Amino acid sequence: MTPSTMRAVVYDQPREFTVKEVPLRDPEPGEVRLKVVQGGVCGTDLHLHEGGFITSYPLTPGHENVGTVEALGDGVDSFRVGELVAVNPNTTCGKCPACRSGDRLYCPSFGGWGTLKPGGFADYLIVPEEQVFSAEGLDPDVAVFAEPAACAVHGIEILQPRPGTTALVFGTGPTGLLLAQLLASSGAAHVTVASIAEPQLRRAEELGLDSAYLMVRGRLDDDIAELAKRGDGGFDYVIDATGVAQVQERTVELARSGGTVLLYGVAHEDDRIAISPYEVFRRELTIRGSFAEIDTVPAALAALRSGRIRTDGLITHRFGLDDYGAAMDAVRSDDSAHKVVMTP
Amino acid sequence: MTPSTMRAVVYDQPREFTVKEVPLRDPEPGEVRLKVVQGGVCGTDLHLHEGGFITSYPLTPGHENVGTVEALGDGVDSFRVGELVAVNPNTTCGKCPACRSGDRLYCPSFGGWGTLKPGGFADYLIVPEEQVFSAEGLDPDVAVFAEPAACAVHGIEILQPRPGTTALVFGTGPTGLLLAQLLASSGAAHVTVASIAEPQLRRAEELGLDSAYLMVRGRLDDDIAELAKRGDGGFDYVIDATGVAQVQERTVELARSGGTVLLYGVAHEDDRIAISPYEVFRRELTIRGSFAEIDTVPAALAALRSGRIRTDGLITHRFGLDDYGAAMDAVRSDDSAHKVVMTP
Amino acid sequence: MTPSTMRAVVYDQPREFTVKEVPLRDPEPGEVRLKVVQGGVCGTDLHLHEGGFITSYPLTPGHENVGTVEALGDGVDSFRVGELVAVNPNTTCGKCPACRSGDRLYCPSFGGWGTLKPGGFADYLIVPEEQVFSAEGLDPDVAVFAEPAACAVHGIEILQPRPGTTALVFGTGPTGLLLAQLLASSGAAHVTVASIAEPQLRRAEELGLDSAYLMVRGRLDDDIAELAKRGDGGFDYVIDATGVAQVQERTVELARSGGTVLLYGVAHEDDRIAISPYEVFRRELTIRGSFAEIDTVPAALAALRSGRIRTDGLITHRFGLDDYGAAMDAVRSDDSAHKVVMTP
Amino acid sequence: MTPSTMRAVVYDQPREFTVKEVPLRDPEPGEVRLKVVQGGVCGTDLHLHEGGFITSYPLTPGHENVGTVEALGDGVDSFRVGELVAVNPNTTCGKCPACRSGDRLYCPSFGGWGTLKPGGFADYLIVPEEQVFSAEGLDPDVAVFAEPAACAVHGIEILQPRPGTTALVFGTGPTGLLLAQLLASSGAAHVTVASIAEPQLRRAEELGLDSAYLMVRGRLDDDIAELAKRGDGGFDYVIDATGVAQVQERTVELARSGGTVLLYGVAHEDDRIAISPYEVFRRELTIRGSFAEIDTVPAALAALRSGRIRTDGLITHRFGLDDYGAAMDAVRSDDSAHKVVMTP
Ligand SMILES: NC(=O)c1ccc[n+]([C@@H]2O[C@H](COP(=O)([O-])OP(=O)(O)OC[C@H]3O[C@@H](n4cnc5c(N)ncnc54)[C@H](OP(=O)(O)O)[C@@H]3O)[C@@H](O)[C@H]2O)c1
Ligand SMILES: NC(=O)c1ccc[n+]([C@@H]2O[C@H](COP(=O)([O-])OP(=O)(O)OC[C@H]3O[C@@H](n4cnc5c(N)ncnc54)[C@H](OP(=O)(O)O)[C@@H]3O)[C@@H](O)[C@H]2O)c1
Ligand SMILES: NC(=O)c1ccc[n+]([C@@H]2O[C@H](COP(=O)([O-])OP(=O)(O)OC[C@H]3O[C@@H](n4cnc5c(N)ncnc54)[C@H](OP(=O)(O)O)[C@@H]3O)[C@@H](O)[C@H]2O)c1
Ligand SMILES: NC(=O)c1ccc[n+]([C@@H]2O[C@H](COP(=O)([O-])OP(=O)(O)OC[C@H]3O[C@@H](n4cnc5c(N)ncnc54)[C@H](OP(=O)(O)O)[C@@H]3O)[C@@H](O)[C@H]2O)c1
Ligand SMILES: [Zn+2]
Ligand SMILES: [Zn+2]
Ligand SMILES: [Zn+2]
Ligand SMILES: [Zn+2]
Repeated sequence: MTPSTMRAVVYDQPREFTVKEVPLRDPEPGEVRLKVVQGGVCGTDLHLHEGGFITSYPLTPGHENVGTVEALGDGVDSFRVGELVAVNPNTTCGKCPACRSGDRLYCPSFGGWGTLKPGGFADYLIVPEEQVFSAEGLDPDVAVFAEPAACAVHGIEILQPRPGTTALVFGTGPTGLLLAQLLASSGAAHVTVASIAEPQLRRAEELGLDSAYLMVRGRLDDDIAELAKRGDGGFDYVIDATGVAQVQERTVELARSGGTVLLYGVAHEDDRIAISPYEVFRRELTIRGSFAEIDTVPAALAALRSGRIRTDGLITHRFGLDDYGAAMDAVRSDDSAHKVVMTP
Repeated sequence: MTPSTMRAVVYDQPREFTVKEVPLRDPEPGEVRLKVVQGGVCGTDLHLHEGGFITSYPLTPGHENVGTVEALGDGVDSFRVGELVAVNPNTTCGKCPACRSGDRLYCPSFGGWGTLKPGGFADYLIVPEEQVFSAEGLDPDVAVFAEPAACAVHGIEILQPRPGTTALVFGTGPTGLLLAQLLASSGAAHVTVASIAEPQLRRAEELGLDSAYLMVRGRLDDDIAELAKRGDGGFDYVIDATGVAQVQERTVELARSGGTVLLYGVAHEDDRIAISPYEVFRRELTIRGSFAEIDTVPAALAALRSGRIRTDGLITHRFGLDDYGAAMDAVRSDDSAHKVVMTP
Repeated sequence: MTPSTMRAVVYDQPREFTVKEVPLRDPEPGEVRLKVVQGGVCGTDLHLHEGGFITSYPLTPGHENVGTVEALGDGVDSFRVGELVAVNPNTTCGKCPACRSGDRLYCPSFGGWGTLKPGGFADYLIVPEEQVFSAEGLDPDVAVFAEPAACAVHGIEILQPRPGTTALVFGTGPTGLLLAQLLASSGAAHVTVASIAEPQLRRAEELGLDSAYLMVRGRLDDDIAELAKRGDGGFDYVIDATGVAQVQERTVELARSGGTVLLYGVAHEDDRIAISPYEVFRRELTIRGSFAEIDTVPAALAALRSGRIRTDGLITHRFGLDDYGAAMDAVRSDDSAHKVVMTP
Repeated sequence: MTPSTMRAVVYDQPREFTVKEVPLRDPEPGEVRLKVVQGGVCGTDLHLHEGGFITSYPLTPGHENVGTVEALGDGVDSFRVGELVAVNPNTTCGKCPACRSGDRLYCPSFGGWGTLKPGGFADYLIVPEEQVFSAEGLDPDVAVFAEPAACAVHGIEILQPRPGTTALVFGTGPTGLLLAQLLASSGAAHVTVASIAEPQLRRAEELGLDSAYLMVRGRLDDDIAELAKRGDGGFDYVIDATGVAQVQERTVELARSGGTVLLYGVAHEDDRIAISPYEVFRRELTIRGSFAEIDTVPAALAALRSGRIRTDGLITHRFGLDDYGAAMDAVRSDDSAHKVVMTP
């Protein structure tokens, strides 16, 4: 029998959270209630901690969720109780000009469970049926990557890589490795990953990526020079998955003429990078951004299912709800952390 | 009877040109000799004057040529003597990795007649058959825009505008107006042109463009604010055709989320513009360059022929060969000049 | 004061309709009630008459609606009473795999007001806010084309025409002329329209289309031969807007190598056309379908507003609600009919 | 020392070939002379045998060549003697409207070494430098697939598969397996191959393809029904690599709404397939052809080099020049043959 309360991480204001019992309601018509299996922690959660994004308190974070279906609201017929599912946390208003032109990602109300609405760092999570996707047969340690992988799929849809091309990905966090593997199975014949994180680079090699390059803090000029040499005229695609503006600024010179730079990592709002408009013109470069996802969870699950994206070994740290602070510390500053997950 | 010499503008070194008699040779197999009707002067010619681009002297500039076929080399069978033709001045090596991958624009040897080889500021011009395109039935005052229009077509091919969209073009020189008209007939339902050149803006209105905005030197912040208001959430496409880095830097903020900035104007090599990588990411912007053209002269001639691009009134100044210096002065600094052409 | 009943065309079963008083309800939260100004009749309505598409009776047809806002449900804040608006009649379930992958057009529940739900051949029409689009400042005789123009915009988005190309459109009904004008302002430098309807072809010329070709019933081979000659190697885009399978079968041979055939007209479900797979392979042809629209009403309204699509002279017949039978007759078999509209 | 004659397969008319000594000339400026290592035999060679394609005799076939550089014509500086290379056999005129618009594949003079000019079923092969590509470090048994893989790359460039999609490939000859592997590494998260060739299907599984389906001759309806079930709403991409019209006709129904059929296999010129234009419209299907290649050898070599395409086990038969008849017999009718190569 489902209890009438559950434990949840709850913020009442920026930087102030507690883990406490909160009421557990029944799913309304069209909703699904999940027993949370686990949920990934990512940079967005650190940002929420600092008071970013949020419009209203109390808030429960957790937007990378996998769970089992526990109760169905009226009219929900596409799932059965007990089924393993992943959640798409993003939704939009449906009424603004962006939504009505098919550009849902640019909806001013873009957001959802774990950012604007109660998320999955809790025992249970209630979401509308249309946000739920079957993950039956997948290991929960794979399915927990559905949301970040969906973002990466969206990035690849923006890039539309051509077959036989080369790619360079900066950053080997979970996101960098998802992107790199998707590139390798979406056209790029050779993918190089580069970062300052040695254990992550070893994992990149284990996952079968073509080449891994260890950067050294404070030696960016040398690293760029060496990567330029390896690029031999430039990479067709250069992707930033570090979010570090100094790195982003150096992506342009590493792109082949006619190539594309994808700014995927999240820089600070007041960072600026210096670009040569003459170079963009003369070498016909493209610089693009990729933001979140709205409809690529199915594609992400397909890629996880078939092994186009592998995640073995990526989860390095697991925490219970009571240790949410420690989980954030690991994401923030533990060099040995790769993917960190919360298990209620 | 064809004479054995002809007059030509000849540079023996940067900034040093004379107009003199030079030998006139017969076309070799596969070549066509044209009697030059007229040729456009553009910023590239000013750049050549200063010693840019050129690898070897003596050089005769002139790369926007229209002429009549005067003699055919052996094996040339696609033209007849007397036919009005336009010239594609650009060619590539055919052997480099770029050429062999179908990326001819990125050939290190990209260039041609009027830049690397003798151009059309002369009585006659000799080019291979494959660089020549019939302009029969076109007014030479229209056909002389074939080359700049071909560049603009290439820019539009890069943009791939969607129907029902909005566009903003900075700069109303010949190039800005070619681009603006092509946008208006390539999907954009509303095209605004903006520049500091009042007579050019009036011409833009006469050519049927949807909206013309007069900027005032030194008032860029105000102008950008006003254009942002008109953009009402941003333009789908923002194109720079000024080449002015300060203007280029402000294009990004005027683009709609999901929109594209096209850097078409040629900035200085050492100009840098400051871009917010966060904004590019968050609003999924695209920044692209467009450089020259290699295979779009047929499309440009089609657009000129059907009136999708109109050029009436654009030619404001005409000079004979002996006045090449005055022609360059007009391009450089005569506010009343729009398109300047040389008529031998 | 709004009455409590209104007149409406009501089908109780296929082929059996009456015009009668039906209850008029208040808009619920999120809904808008429109006073219908007018609505277009099209082939879909004939199909509904015969019992096609419909799942439940009673049904009121009418899916090409323009009206004035008359009452707002709770929470509706993007419109004001009295505003002229056009309606997007199409909606989807939001929950099926297609909807959740961003492929809303392939939702099994695709449909809406005038097909599955009460449409606009009535005094009033009630629709959710998100289906309503401001048409302020537009002539209702222009705004009434919003829905068919939105379908045409979708077709053009599928084609993605390149600049400087050529197009051939079969059929000069309202739809053929919308498509032809959009092609002419979306890249095609030359658009030919061809059909058996002489007065429609004259209108095509008045609307500025590049070339109009009169076909003669029973002389298809000759017409195709003549069009092939005019195509001079083939058209880049060949669009069928007749729905006649015999014509559709002949589109392929008129396409240039590398060109595209768009099957836009609606053939019978059991029609088959014979295609040479060798020709498709050898000449790298593309054959595509375009079905309805879901998010292109804004783009269509933009194109109607700026005159990229003109509709002057297209409405030839107007009927009151009581004459719905006569309106259908006109669409079905009146050679002088072009666009037929219902005015309650 | 290079001899002055060499052995070559020579046709003097259709169906009449001999293996004989022919003069061996020096490479002219810009040409490279290769010592042939080996060359693949394919259906095109059977077609040439019957008198297809050829314009002039005598002819030496062989268009899938790998060799070592043996002599360099004047001015050739991108290769060194002894280097292992693959050959792009295709070239175009450079002067026709297609060539001058960047559509080289549609050049009326498309063709080259092994079809219009002397090919590689000989001891030596002479080709222009721009047709030669370094294959250093590759096993000649891999490099010999450069040409068919380049065709497959072109097919994939036409498809532009999106990430997380599904694909079905009919035919598991060398070409079907190249296409299937490229699909699997160009976005498709799940690739099914289907054919009547059991040993080939086993090889498909060894190469890591996701699913292999054995068809039975004469049971096409059952096979299509079963594949439809596996497709579960349809495959995003359905590719024919059999060339059998009966199979091609059934591809359309297996495509998902919004999906694409690629006609890659070469049907007979007078085959016709029956297509429902209503279905193409209603389900927004795309049917496309893919023909040969002109500039994708570099991409193909990259994919072969990185293992995105694997070829281990594909070569089942090897013949000397004297056994060219037996080689063609193997291609034509030996069920155990997969890839057949000629080794001079
Ligand atoms: N666009 C989107 O939709 C989207 C979606 C998800 C995530 N993101 C963004 O993508 C980025 C990566 O996400 P993540 O979860 O993988 O984060 P992460 O675990 O923090 O990964 C960052 C990676 O960059 C490396 N790095 C940091 N500074 C570097 C430097 N100066 N030079 C080279 N490498 C450096 C890190 O190494 P260390 O671990 O040793 O520091 C790590 O490998 C973040 O900015 C995140 O916000 C974007
Ligand atoms: N990408 C390509 O393939 C390609 C091809 C051709 C040309 N181009 C480049 O495109 C640009 C335009 O070419 P064009 O031949 O049209 O040159 P142009 O005649 O010099 O046109 C420049 C336009 O920008 C205006 N302008 C100058 N400074 C401005 C400012 N600060 N704010 C607003 N407007 C300003 C000029 O007005 P005033 O006339 O009053 O100064 C004029 O209308 C040049 O940079 C050229 O090199 C590129
Ligand atoms: N794909 C979509 O989303 C979509 C949307 C709207 C409409 N449609 C379809 O598009 C088609 C056109 O719609 P519409 O409203 O314009 O219909 P319409 O008014 O009936 O137009 C049909 C046109 O084709 C001409 N025509 C008929 N038979 C012909 C023949 N054998 N040879 C040449 N021309 C012939 C007609 O001439 P006459 O008038 O003299 O017969 C008329 O010009 C219809 O099939 C409709 O169902 C599709
Ligand atoms: N578009 C291009 O650029 C291009 C380039 C190269 C090749 N091609 C074409 O692609 C096709 C395949 O080439 P390939 O070299 O791989 O030829 P292949 O070795 O003859 O392969 C044909 C495949 O189809 C199978 N097959 C034959 N009849 C079938 C049927 N009724 N049902 C199911 N499967 C059937 C064959 O099985 P069995 O072996 O048991 O007969 C074999 O697996 C050919 O038509 C070729 O001309 C096109
Ligand atoms: Zn919205
Ligand atoms: Zn080159
Ligand atoms: Zn749906
Ligand atoms: Zn050619």
